[in-house]
Amino acid sequence: PWVACCRRVCLSWIGADWIFLMLLGVALALLSFLMDIFIFLFMDAHRFLYHLSDSNVMLQYLTWITFPLLLMLFAAGFTQMLAPQASGSGIPEIKIILRGLMMKEYLTLKTLVVKVISLVCVLGSELPVGKEGPFVHFGALCAALLCKFMSFFSDIYKNEARNLEMLTAGCAVGIGCCFAAPVGGVLFSIEVTSVFFAVRNYWRGLMSSVFGILIFRLLAVWNKEEETIMALFPTKFRLEYPFDLQELPAFAVMGIACGFGGALFVYLNGKIALFVKKQKAMKNFLLTNCFIYSGLVSVFISSLTFPPGFGQFMAGQLTQRESLISFFDNRTWSKEGIVEDFHPDDHLSAWKHPQANVFIILSVFIMMKFWMSALSITLPIPAGSFVPVFVIGAAFGRLVGEGMATLFPDGFETEHGVHPIIPGAYAVVGAAALTAGITHTISTAVIMIELTGQIRYGLPILIAVILSNIISQSLQPSIYDSIIRLKKLPYLPELGWGHQEKYSLHVEDFMVRDVRYITLKSTYRDLLKILRTGNHKKLPLVKSEDSMILLGSVERAQIRRLLKQHAQHLRDLVDEERQH
Amino acid sequence: PWVACCRRVCLSWIGADWIFLMLLGVALALLSFLMDIFIFLFMDAHRFLYHLSDSNVMLQYLTWITFPLLLMLFAAGFTQMLAPQASGSGIPEIKIILRGLMMKEYLTLKTLVVKVISLVCVLGSELPVGKEGPFVHFGALCAALLCKFMSFFSDIYKNEARNLEMLTAGCAVGIGCCFAAPVGGVLFSIEVTSVFFAVRNYWRGLMSSVFGILIFRLLAVWNKEEETIMALFPTKFRLEYPFDLQELPAFAVMGIACGFGGALFVYLNGKIALFVKKQKAMKNFLLTNCFIYSGLVSVFISSLTFPPGFGQFMAGQLTQRESLISFFDNRTWSKEGIVEDFHPDDHLSAWKHPQANVFIILSVFIMMKFWMSALSITLPIPAGSFVPVFVIGAAFGRLVGEGMATLFPDGFETEHGVHPIIPGAYAVVGAAALTAGITHTISTAVIMIELTGQIRYGLPILIAVILSNIISQSLQPSIYDSIIRLKKLPYLPELGWGHQEKYSLHVEDFMVRDVRYITLKSTYRDLLKILRTGNHKKLPLVKSEDSMILLGSVERAQIRRLLKQHAQHLRDLVDEERQH
Repeated sequence: PWVACCRRVCLSWIGADWIFLMLLGVALALLSFLMDIFIFLFMDAHRFLYHLSDSNVMLQYLTWITFPLLLMLFAAGFTQMLAPQASGSGIPEIKIILRGLMMKEYLTLKTLVVKVISLVCVLGSELPVGKEGPFVHFGALCAALLCKFMSFFSDIYKNEARNLEMLTAGCAVGIGCCFAAPVGGVLFSIEVTSVFFAVRNYWRGLMSSVFGILIFRLLAVWNKEEETIMALFPTKFRLEYPFDLQELPAFAVMGIACGFGGALFVYLNGKIALFVKKQKAMKNFLLTNCFIYSGLVSVFISSLTFPPGFGQFMAGQLTQRESLISFFDNRTWSKEGIVEDFHPDDHLSAWKHPQANVFIILSVFIMMKFWMSALSITLPIPAGSFVPVFVIGAAFGRLVGEGMATLFPDGFETEHGVHPIIPGAYAVVGAAALTAGITHTISTAVIMIELTGQIRYGLPILIAVILSNIISQSLQPSIYDSIIRLKKLPYLPELGWGHQEKYSLHVEDFMVRDVRYITLKSTYRDLLKILRTGNHKKLPLVKSEDSMILLGSVERAQIRRLLKQHAQHLRDLVDEERQH
Repeated sequence: PWVACCRRVCLSWIGADWIFLMLLGVALALLSFLMDIFIFLFMDAHRFLYHLSDSNVMLQYLTWITFPLLLMLFAAGFTQMLAPQASGSGIPEIKIILRGLMMKEYLTLKTLVVKVISLVCVLGSELPVGKEGPFVHFGALCAALLCKFMSFFSDIYKNEARNLEMLTAGCAVGIGCCFAAPVGGVLFSIEVTSVFFAVRNYWRGLMSSVFGILIFRLLAVWNKEEETIMALFPTKFRLEYPFDLQELPAFAVMGIACGFGGALFVYLNGKIALFVKKQKAMKNFLLTNCFIYSGLVSVFISSLTFPPGFGQFMAGQLTQRESLISFFDNRTWSKEGIVEDFHPDDHLSAWKHPQANVFIILSVFIMMKFWMSALSITLPIPAGSFVPVFVIGAAFGRLVGEGMATLFPDGFETEHGVHPIIPGAYAVVGAAALTAGITHTISTAVIMIELTGQIRYGLPILIAVILSNIISQSLQPSIYDSIIRLKKLPYLPELGWGHQEKYSLHVEDFMVRDVRYITLKSTYRDLLKILRTGNHKKLPLVKSEDSMILLGSVERAQIRRLLKQHAQHLRDLVDEERQH
């Protein structure tokens, strides 16, 4: 008896919430860590081959474009053949699932494996796409699979409503592990996936995230990447007097500009996606087309970033991570002698050019990356839009910051001394604001703070993010809603928080009044008439025309079958009569 | 016609969401700013009088205790006579209101005015209570009053459900303006007041908070308190290598200890409140008793903190703000020569004592403040429990940190140099963890980060906060739920997130099966029998005993009245018959 008792206790213990949350955290931390390793491996291999062939520019160019091309073709083919549902970021679909419409094929082990492998290839190919959207999807996938696994131990995991709550926690952990941002990750996943939210899910998400991130960062320490647990992109801006009050308007204007930029990005992305869709419909060779399209885009983009070619004007050799680190640099590049001093082995030397100054390179970088990212995320591969937009925003912020530093070279004077402007801080604000503009979230501010490990610019970031949201929300839907519309997924638009006229909207204002129905006394003629005049899939059946009490619904197909049978019967009768 | 049109546009513009949110932010920022000024004024006056009378210790003692006594008596009398509902923190009541039970008297202008004035007096008297709970109440009050005001301009403000949403935003702004913590404030208000919440309310709260805090901090700058916008308690811990991995267990143990401490605080507070309640019931002189009780507590506490007396062993002369600043100090007090070097004019000199070392003073401080705070928040005055517990937690953290620094005087060695332990960081972690333990929230971590303006200790804070929550949630209800139970407010307990057995609980498991009811055919005798056997306030009326279709409910009082009338009628009949 005590064996049975012990077993029961053991099983209920394994089925407990916190075991699940810890397992989820560990799974996603490991996934994030291993994926990063392979992505860096690919990138290093690319760099290694590129530097190996530096005797001949033509050969070097071929190496530069072939490596990403192969990875891209593999990723596109692998995704399209095995699990087409793994393409895109996955956030739009998760949004639909969390609103109650179970799209089962999106939560299978096959999708997870295919998406992980493809994403590693895509990110290894240095296409300007990100991993944050796919990580929301991974989080949900891991949670769903873990629920299935845990249901062997505890019956509670057979409860569908509870499993949906666990999916929510999974999304939060996914994004948290991706950026090492526990609070920001949880808030972001809430904002992009939910309309209403249970506080207990916020707790679940945060607990699992913290555990996952602890593991994720410990792995980095054990792997000798870091000395101790730190933020992913730690900044070292001064703690005293972070910004002057006179800089606030500049931050605000930047927020507004980022709002317009975010709306433009969503618009551009939508236009490209629609254009591609039309081409596809024309050719009807989805698989081949998909290959050709992905390959063409890859060759086109890597040709432009080829460092000895046009790439020298847009810091083409930098990966997204290296660009971000350089934007958050604590020096003022526009000051004389700073850029010239960058060591050639340093990543920062990408911003040094004998003919062009840093403003030109930054502007070209922003413009090129803008359309490249908008184009790349329409490809049929796993790809997120958060990180590339983040990089563009940081570049824009750096540009504004350098401009401010040129306008006010001596900074702002107060009683206690002179405080120069920090362009790196503008990059931080810009990155948060532009990402907020395309995702329509405020929590990008929190992610930004956790990512850089500094909160002294908290208020400017929040102000810019809110202004960016106000502008972009009134111009365009968020990138996720835009994709939902493009993919024509079933979806109820949100009420929003500024649209007070919707509060006086009632069902009667938009309901269909001229409903076709069948009564118990309908004749075959009536049925035929209804079938001919409308094309509803289902028809309501009411008791009588006066009472209008709904008894149920009849499918169109059933009525058609009935009518056919009846017609056959009539024909048979006529035939019989003729024979007589 | 264009005048009318212009007027309509103008009115709808005024009625817009964002105007409301900005007004709410400004109102609370002004309130917070003005209250702080008056509180400091009272504190300065107290100090001034105390130093004026330093020729005679007896006189000095009298000054030290009389000033707070007068303020306390005024606050207690003012609250009890004009608006007893203004006493306490107000969070429990707001929690009830946001769950749909409108307690109208809690949201009137009178309550606001009385609570503001009393709170200023209470905080000016330096009783160990806080202003965070009352500020949640103020936020809700301002939102409710503003809704009433705005309903002149826009009909949308007559929608009750929408006004409830605005209350949620108000709570968030209140706490945000109190700590200059926009994100933490919003999350805290969500955690303590809601079970489910709409994402749009999170946006509303954050937008209003950011605006309010901008104003609040700008006022501080214009008032020459600060040079530029900074956190309320900015810390200056090193940015490189914030903590060693070997310190993580210490943070975790501290979190667990804080969980036990939090549960003990709630338990102690409940016991004191129950004890006082019994005494009150005995004496039945609520008003006098209330006066005596508040006065006694005030004299008792200020006698203990009298600096030349026992106060010298518990840093009695420090206000809560000064204690917090000293705990977050970036030096290691237990190192030789540090404490001795504190300048007598500095607040830090309160921790310097010729006979006792810093460990003893910190321990005495923690123990004394613990019961003092638990006692103070039971007084019939406006008082929050967040800030005093925050101070105690910081003291505990400082104690642990100093202990760690003594244990490992050389810090931890790595390849890149030696990294000494920072006891101030332990104070930050301790403060967040103990507050989390009594409020059962995770967002205290975010508040802590925003309050100190440093996030490098984000992960240790989150780990300690989560562990503290796990321990305290399994031992005691949160301080707010405990007060709800003590006050016997109507309240549905939460499901929680660890209690999986509750998922298989159905209504039939706890519903009352033996329901007393009246049918349409009930006789007077039946009614009398029902009244005698049960004591339900309302009785259901069903169609018949077989169908059991519910028609409505009848109040007990109505039935009693009916029976009385009937009895009277019968008596009259009998009398009439006799007369005949």
